[in-house]
Amino acid sequence: MDVKYINPFLTATINVIKTMAFLDPKPGKPFIKKESKALGDVSGVIGLSGDLKGSLSITFEEDTIKHIVSNMFGEDINEINDEVRDAVGELTNMISGDARRQLQSFGVKIDAAIPSIITGKNHTITHIAKGPIVALPFDTEKGKFIVEFTMEKTK
Amino acid sequence: MDVKYINPFLTATINVIKTMAFLDPKPGKPFIKKESKALGDVSGVIGLSGDLKGSLSITFEEDTIKHIVSNMFGEDINEINDEVRDAVGELTNMISGDARRQLQSFGVKIDAAIPSIITGKNHTITHIAKGPIVALPFDTEKGKFIVEFTMEKTK
Repeated sequence: MDVKYINPFLTATINVIKTMAFLDPKPGKPFIKKESKALGDVSGVIGLSGDLKGSLSITFEEDTIKHIVSNMFGEDINEINDEVRDAVGELTNMISGDARRQLQSFGVKIDAAIPSIITGKNHTITHIAKGPIVALPFDTEKGKFIVEFTMEKTK
Repeated sequence: MDVKYINPFLTATINVIKTMAFLDPKPGKPFIKKESKALGDVSGVIGLSGDLKGSLSITFEEDTIKHIVSNMFGEDINEINDEVRDAVGELTNMISGDARRQLQSFGVKIDAAIPSIITGKNHTITHIAKGPIVALPFDTEKGKFIVEFTMEKTK
C-alpha cells in the first residue's frame, strides 16, 4: 500500500472529530504492521471497495467515546447506549467519506459499505489483509483512540 | 430490502460450514428487525457495496467456533488465537463470496471489502442501517452462531 494514502485518513479523522465534537485529537506516530490488533471498548468498522479493497476501523476507550459523544450532543453521556452506537456510526461514515474524497484526488475511487459498531470491554479488531495495516493512534484529554485501515488491490 | 435476498445468505452459510468444517448447521427461523445486536465471542464482519451497500457479520459463541475450526484443521483448538481469527476471516470471505455469486443471478452485483475479525467475550455487533437487518440463527452440536446482514440502496 502506498504511504501517500495515510494522510487522507489522518486528516479526515482530525477534521471530523474537531468538527463534530469540538476536540483537537493529538495524533501519535503512525505505525505499520502486518498484524495489528486494536484493543478497546467501542469500535466502528466499515468496508471499503472499488479501485482498492480494504477496511477501516476506529476503536475507542470507553471514557474517550463518552467524552466525544457528550461533546457532540451537548449533554453528559454516562453509558454506552444506542445513541453512542449511532454516533460512532456517524463518525465512522464521515471519516471514511472525508478520506475517500481525498483519495479521489489521487485518482483512487473507493466506495464505502455501511458501518458496523462493536461494543464490549477490551475487544480486539483484526483486519484480515494481505498487505500492511496502518495504525493511527490519537490522544484526547480524556483518553485514547486508534484508527486502523488497510487497502489492497482487487483481484 | 427484498426478502429474496435472504436465501443466498442462508444457503451460502450452510454450504461453506458444511464444506469447510464437515458440519451440518441447523438453521433456525430467520428474523428481521430494525435494530439487532448479535452477541457472541468471535465475529467476522465484511462490508458490501456495489448495486446495493451493506454489511454482513457472522458471530460465534466461543465453543462453537473452537469446534468449527478444530474440524477445519483436523486438530483440537482450545483457545481463540490467530489461527482462529484467520479461519473466521476465510469463512466470512467464503460466505460473502457464495452469497454474492447467488445475488448476481438476480442481477445484483455486489463487491466485498476485506473481513475484520472481532474477539472479546460477549461483544455486540450493531449494523448502522437505514433498513431492516436480517438475522439468521444457526445451531450446531457444540453451540450457536448467527449471521446478520443488511443491504440498502446506494445514493
